[in-house]
Amino acid sequence: MTNKKTGYKHSSEKQGMSDGLFEIEAKYCSWGDTVHYAKELKIFKRCDGNYLYDRDDVEYLDLQMWYSAATFGYKHPRLGQALKKQIDTLPQLACQYLHEEKILLSAKIAQNIEKTFDSKGRVHFNVGGASAIEDSIKIVRNHTKKNLVFAFMGSYHGRTLGATAITSSYRYREKFGHFGDRANFIPYPYCFRCLLGKNKENCNLACLRQFEKLFESEYYSIVNTKTHHCEFGAFYVEPVQATGGYIIPPNNYFAELKKILDRYNILFVDDEIQMGFYRTGKLWAIEHFDVTPDIMVFGKALTNGLNPISAIWAKEDLISPEVFPAGSTHATFSSNPLGTATGLEVMNLIEESDFGKIVPQKGKYFVAQLKALQRKYPQIGDVEGLGLAIRVEMCEKDGFTPNRELTDAIMNIGLSGKLTAGGKRRGLILDVGGYYKNVFTLAPSLFIQESEIDLAMGLFEEALKKGIAATT
Amino acid sequence: MTNKKTGYKHSSEKQGMSDGLFEIEAKYCSWGDTVHYAKELKIFKRCDGNYLYDRDDVEYLDLQMWYSAATFGYKHPRLGQALKKQIDTLPQLACQYLHEEKILLSAKIAQNIEKTFDSKGRVHFNVGGASAIEDSIKIVRNHTKKNLVFAFMGSYHGRTLGATAITSSYRYREKFGHFGDRANFIPYPYCFRCLLGKNKENCNLACLRQFEKLFESEYYSIVNTKTHHCEFGAFYVEPVQATGGYIIPPNNYFAELKKILDRYNILFVDDEIQMGFYRTGKLWAIEHFDVTPDIMVFGKALTNGLNPISAIWAKEDLISPEVFPAGSTHATFSSNPLGTATGLEVMNLIEESDFGKIVPQKGKYFVAQLKALQRKYPQIGDVEGLGLAIRVEMCEKDGFTPNRELTDAIMNIGLSGKLTAGGKRRGLILDVGGYYKNVFTLAPSLFIQESEIDLAMGLFEEALKKGIAATT
Amino acid sequence: MTNKKTGYKHSSEKQGMSDGLFEIEAKYCSWGDTVHYAKELKIFKRCDGNYLYDRDDVEYLDLQMWYSAATFGYKHPRLGQALKKQIDTLPQLACQYLHEEKILLSAKIAQNIEKTFDSKGRVHFNVGGASAIEDSIKIVRNHTKKNLVFAFMGSYHGRTLGATAITSSYRYREKFGHFGDRANFIPYPYCFRCLLGKNKENCNLACLRQFEKLFESEYYSIVNTKTHHCEFGAFYVEPVQATGGYIIPPNNYFAELKKILDRYNILFVDDEIQMGFYRTGKLWAIEHFDVTPDIMVFGKALTNGLNPISAIWAKEDLISPEVFPAGSTHATFSSNPLGTATGLEVMNLIEESDFGKIVPQKGKYFVAQLKALQRKYPQIGDVEGLGLAIRVEMCEKDGFTPNRELTDAIMNIGLSGKLTAGGKRRGLILDVGGYYKNVFTLAPSLFIQESEIDLAMGLFEEALKKGIAATT
Amino acid sequence: MTNKKTGYKHSSEKQGMSDGLFEIEAKYCSWGDTVHYAKELKIFKRCDGNYLYDRDDVEYLDLQMWYSAATFGYKHPRLGQALKKQIDTLPQLACQYLHEEKILLSAKIAQNIEKTFDSKGRVHFNVGGASAIEDSIKIVRNHTKKNLVFAFMGSYHGRTLGATAITSSYRYREKFGHFGDRANFIPYPYCFRCLLGKNKENCNLACLRQFEKLFESEYYSIVNTKTHHCEFGAFYVEPVQATGGYIIPPNNYFAELKKILDRYNILFVDDEIQMGFYRTGKLWAIEHFDVTPDIMVFGKALTNGLNPISAIWAKEDLISPEVFPAGSTHATFSSNPLGTATGLEVMNLIEESDFGKIVPQKGKYFVAQLKALQRKYPQIGDVEGLGLAIRVEMCEKDGFTPNRELTDAIMNIGLSGKLTAGGKRRGLILDVGGYYKNVFTLAPSLFIQESEIDLAMGLFEEALKKGIAATT
Repeated sequence: MTNKKTGYKHSSEKQGMSDGLFEIEAKYCSWGDTVHYAKELKIFKRCDGNYLYDRDDVEYLDLQMWYSAATFGYKHPRLGQALKKQIDTLPQLACQYLHEEKILLSAKIAQNIEKTFDSKGRVHFNVGGASAIEDSIKIVRNHTKKNLVFAFMGSYHGRTLGATAITSSYRYREKFGHFGDRANFIPYPYCFRCLLGKNKENCNLACLRQFEKLFESEYYSIVNTKTHHCEFGAFYVEPVQATGGYIIPPNNYFAELKKILDRYNILFVDDEIQMGFYRTGKLWAIEHFDVTPDIMVFGKALTNGLNPISAIWAKEDLISPEVFPAGSTHATFSSNPLGTATGLEVMNLIEESDFGKIVPQKGKYFVAQLKALQRKYPQIGDVEGLGLAIRVEMCEKDGFTPNRELTDAIMNIGLSGKLTAGGKRRGLILDVGGYYKNVFTLAPSLFIQESEIDLAMGLFEEALKKGIAATT
Repeated sequence: MTNKKTGYKHSSEKQGMSDGLFEIEAKYCSWGDTVHYAKELKIFKRCDGNYLYDRDDVEYLDLQMWYSAATFGYKHPRLGQALKKQIDTLPQLACQYLHEEKILLSAKIAQNIEKTFDSKGRVHFNVGGASAIEDSIKIVRNHTKKNLVFAFMGSYHGRTLGATAITSSYRYREKFGHFGDRANFIPYPYCFRCLLGKNKENCNLACLRQFEKLFESEYYSIVNTKTHHCEFGAFYVEPVQATGGYIIPPNNYFAELKKILDRYNILFVDDEIQMGFYRTGKLWAIEHFDVTPDIMVFGKALTNGLNPISAIWAKEDLISPEVFPAGSTHATFSSNPLGTATGLEVMNLIEESDFGKIVPQKGKYFVAQLKALQRKYPQIGDVEGLGLAIRVEMCEKDGFTPNRELTDAIMNIGLSGKLTAGGKRRGLILDVGGYYKNVFTLAPSLFIQESEIDLAMGLFEEALKKGIAATT
Repeated sequence: MTNKKTGYKHSSEKQGMSDGLFEIEAKYCSWGDTVHYAKELKIFKRCDGNYLYDRDDVEYLDLQMWYSAATFGYKHPRLGQALKKQIDTLPQLACQYLHEEKILLSAKIAQNIEKTFDSKGRVHFNVGGASAIEDSIKIVRNHTKKNLVFAFMGSYHGRTLGATAITSSYRYREKFGHFGDRANFIPYPYCFRCLLGKNKENCNLACLRQFEKLFESEYYSIVNTKTHHCEFGAFYVEPVQATGGYIIPPNNYFAELKKILDRYNILFVDDEIQMGFYRTGKLWAIEHFDVTPDIMVFGKALTNGLNPISAIWAKEDLISPEVFPAGSTHATFSSNPLGTATGLEVMNLIEESDFGKIVPQKGKYFVAQLKALQRKYPQIGDVEGLGLAIRVEMCEKDGFTPNRELTDAIMNIGLSGKLTAGGKRRGLILDVGGYYKNVFTLAPSLFIQESEIDLAMGLFEEALKKGIAATT
Repeated sequence: MTNKKTGYKHSSEKQGMSDGLFEIEAKYCSWGDTVHYAKELKIFKRCDGNYLYDRDDVEYLDLQMWYSAATFGYKHPRLGQALKKQIDTLPQLACQYLHEEKILLSAKIAQNIEKTFDSKGRVHFNVGGASAIEDSIKIVRNHTKKNLVFAFMGSYHGRTLGATAITSSYRYREKFGHFGDRANFIPYPYCFRCLLGKNKENCNLACLRQFEKLFESEYYSIVNTKTHHCEFGAFYVEPVQATGGYIIPPNNYFAELKKILDRYNILFVDDEIQMGFYRTGKLWAIEHFDVTPDIMVFGKALTNGLNPISAIWAKEDLISPEVFPAGSTHATFSSNPLGTATGLEVMNLIEESDFGKIVPQKGKYFVAQLKALQRKYPQIGDVEGLGLAIRVEMCEKDGFTPNRELTDAIMNIGLSGKLTAGGKRRGLILDVGGYYKNVFTLAPSLFIQESEIDLAMGLFEEALKKGIAATT
């Protein structure tokens, strides 16, 4: 059924047409966010565990969990409880005053990092990942006295102007004038589609060696070989490239990169916004890569999506009161008590859980199922996972040529809520990323059960079959 | 009592020393936010209505209400209830999908603006005021194809890099490198301290005439008199300058400014982040000034401090899907359902209340009391209010020379929690702003009662007396 | 007679029509320079002393002398001789090797400055005024670590991108993208048209006091009052504003300005490109103003227009080999021997002359004649001179409203070569500047005789009469 | 002999010590240019043909000819004559008026380009190569509305701030603040040291293919694949990389590059400043590569070093009066008549000569000699030439590892003037370039004779032997 006024197709009467919600949305909501990427709009009315429910009460198994913001499942009772408790005691407080939860949450995070990386530092809060990225840029600029940084091709660090300058897509900048601090974007080790045409098995990190070579002569543009100063103050890193398509670098990549950076005092900034909080089976994704970041940025799952609080952690010499004193930055809601209380409970939950054990197990199970499916369908070009961050790259029958059309079809079929399992009409929530918009970036709840993974596989195969049928 | 390790004085054993909270804070928390502006730290443990309570349960009458973020009072039961209800239904949802509250809140705001200003437009959400400011800059740049804007001396629009570039204080930029989009800062009509040395009564808006004159010759640097194009695409305006010291412009100032801007297609961006939501006695502070903004930015009281959601509204031709299509910007938490549900209840509350009537009355009462006090104490140089946005400018005995020392003393005395009223030990929460850090920017809850204003006056006079004694 | 193809009117058959020069020009020459500001093109074929000659051999008395580049007269025999001599010995030499004239010219200039200002420093060559300005910006940035500077409204420092950023007209920037280093433009003391509406006699430098006030509060946007650091590293100054209309500041203006700048370590950069070399009666125009610059920039008359060589002088601590070592900057032609040899002869000429005495005398005589004329013609709104830099501001009959139409008419009448004096057909070369393009900026040769000033007055009055007739 | 005050060694009494020239230079000259790269200063007093002469009248055979600025030989009598003739007729003229030579020179150049490339366009003058580069940037920005461009690693386009931003060496930017328009530097096809480790014979332009691949996905950071707009408006190209070490790209490289650029409307800007005017055997070096530039920039040899005039040529749609009207840019000396007259005579000389035939012959002869020498000395790693632009890359004995020490030694031995040939004490002028400062960039006069090439070979071998001895 198509709304005549908006030209949109909607899946159901109830979806917003009977009460005019779609008309209202078409008139008063900005379409500038990501809602209207989809051609068929969907209104959800409740959520629980791994599931979203639309206005017709159709159940959607969610394999993206708000791009990892709801890593610990929807409507987790204990986290809801912590939030409610704070609502009843200190729901509001200007951030120029202290409250206990802010202090304890900072300490828990900093102590954890100190233990893991043997590195002392401090935590600074803000709201939203992009604002925390901006704080990290401030730390970098203050320390290095440089505006410019390296970032990766395929990177996504947010959409404030400062974060957009270090996010790879020109599309995000095109309409918004000149960006005088545009990052120097370096190829990410996306081995399935190596820019250099190398083979991961024996490339000896060729892409990294090519980057390293740029430091050999001043004519390669990035370093004064006389002073050993680099034009770029930091390198922004996603340990697993998120929006870029859940790309997992070779084991030794970051450790080798860090060696180069250290030679030139280039800071290593680790963006954990999407991959932090056990998404990859460790609290921080960078833990897989044997490297100690200078700055870390995190958000999303920090409150499991219940408050936009975000934060950075930085090494003591970058953030001590001597170099980053009172008033260096500020945001009204930066350490808002509803956020810190929820974050604190997330940290408690983590401490009491065994995510470090079960997430890799679940991930392994999920990837094994997907690889089995891959053997049946050559259109699944690549499957790889780190913990419960799993990539499924959709291709032509040759298993390599990117197939965006098929990817879109599967995603839309899942979202239409017309799949069937256990005799019940169901939907499947998938998110698409990747350089060619052909990668399912799976980020299920860490509490997903094997039976639910099986359900996911059934729904995915059904959608895949229908998608192949629809696009060939 | 002084903490030997941190060098800080703390007002009480319980304040964080017995359980080591201050030590923990000193070690793991960044001091780069505004907490450590104060020399005596304070930990609060609960709040209610007009009051904050510290760990000794001392009651502090709050006259700043989280810089207006908690405009409708702490722990407002109905707003807490709305938030809890959402926690139990749809606490989380990726912003690429729709939920009812987002649509209804957008509509309520846009319809209100359409009615008030006879201007159609749309609402776009984000998190935190600064991020909404960044969105507004995107709208400006997209429409004007220009990076540069005007803003006011004394302005504060936030602390992301983009917002910092249009915020007047160089202190906020100094440590963070080059700002290639620094605004051109124009004098605000701060009549108590007129830059031109004019008298408000008969100046005929001399400062504005001086600005207007700059458009007469290309040599004044801002306009090509041949093409009538201005180098600056927008003018960022706080209808009442907030951090600048709650400065209220002459009635006709903005209408006259808008005439100039319209001649050169310069957009008028109205920053209502601190003054919106009836702080000044009208939903939007700009309503006092007979002018229709092109873009509005708001946040803080939109959720009464219960969620960092913020938003912009822009005229249809600036934000329609044709010019600001899907993917133009994005933030994970932009229209998070806990935020929209709370915002929607705030709008309901507003619709059912008579703030338009009672806020001016309360403001008038408060200002009258302060003016009476001014007659007793020449150190009160200026008192002025618009609704419940009230400025009290502290001076030397001459009633003019800024007296930052006295201002600080009074603020700290209030914060020490050692004032007395009704036989009870009490505190008074004051916020300091102004070009010379000598202005109390009073922003009490809109629900404050006359009796509480009387209490505030008593506490303020006590602190004032003590402050004068301590600084002379 | 009008060229049908180009649409241009030309004054004579010979002017380029008979041999097709105008057609060729219309086809192969960029019109982006200033030739086509004029509606009637003029081709000159020779020059001598104070005169230009067109292809019909009509003689034009030149009162602008290539905007001061030919300050010492056209085809000065001694300078031509020096240039020819160098052509015959060392006409070419890569600037990485030394030649005697470079060393001696540097020394002569630096010794002169040392004597005049009691300040040691060095000279650095480049080609063209704008490139020397760029060198000065490099010195400023290296010393202050800041990209941003102050400059004056009405300023002109050149048209490279860097110089354009500190030149006031937005028209020069409008088509060329974003300028991230745009100067902060401050009102020049243009007392005839005071932006503040003050009277020069009793204003007490009100405009400067207003600038000074901006340093009082960080909210005025330019200084961190805590660290006393200013956001702007230097102030670019034309001691007499040239393109701006030969505006002469009050005597004490720059000394007072320098006091303010010194408080905040803001460098004073003196642009002498048009006013240096005795144009104002002293070698450097800034000598009139009792202030020692930190950096000086000069060119044009340095070679009397015979070679584009230009240079900066900077105080030793800004330019010593320790801070500005080998390779800091470079230009192929920077100290080209034809340029240095000519410049050296210019300096010799100066040493042997009494310009310091005769230029003020001639200027006084010229201004007196013009003031007499002013009494006859109310359209001459303002006449003022410093040495032989003389401004004549053309107005409506009220003596104040700028009259660009009349100014253009007079200029074109002069250029048409149809005036008469001594029974001979003649032309008059005038240049127009000023904020409203209504100022004749007179820069005659320093060798002009009183009889020639009389001739100039006659021609000017004739053109003035005709101009008034044509525009009323 | 060492000057005690300056610490410099000088080769001779006469060299500036007896008359104190070195002391004067040490005191009053900026050392920020390239003179003090050398450890032994040299003062030259005359030049002729292929030779420079120092103050002891030692003769130096010059193989760099002012980095090609004196391509047609020192003190060429006919060019000197043309210059002198102009000194006697119209040596000076403000560039807002026309003179014949400007028109004729523009026409000669534009007609030549039209004939060679079948492309109509116009010529715009300025002074110095960097300023012409700035003009070209203005054309690019005006046409593309973009600030950013591509340039090559190893590129050198000048040292104004705008040119420095697109010149690869960070060393040139390091001390001068933030460069908001820094180019995106792409690897040049420097096949002797391929960044990709490929072999020129069978690489199939691998480096170009890698660049092309970046346009495939928006995540590679440079293009919006939806709109097909690229973030970069132009690509700045040296057809033979000059300062980079006279690197000659594969024949089909630029034609293939142009195809990619045309797909995305990226302008091709051809910097001929050093390689133009038959240095490579054709008037324009780009003629070797079967591609039509959109913009060309040239200078240096345009006047054979007798005047700093430079220019750009641009296609009609980029520079027509409609898009680049009067006043778009300006420089006092831009089309100064001494420059245009000399340039015109250079063009006459070219038309009457057979450089297109003799330069390749001489180049071939010279390269053959060098290759013979290479067979004797493994330290000569690479010899290659295009016309009389010849590279000799000095290495360790392995013939590959860059040997800067040896290169410096040879250069200094040549400069010391203590070589011998024909029983006469002689010097040899060599210039060093290259990514590792180990390349002799030979640019002899186009009038060099085979006997002089033989002489050069003798002197070079002598210096080479001594250099090897001194560094091993």
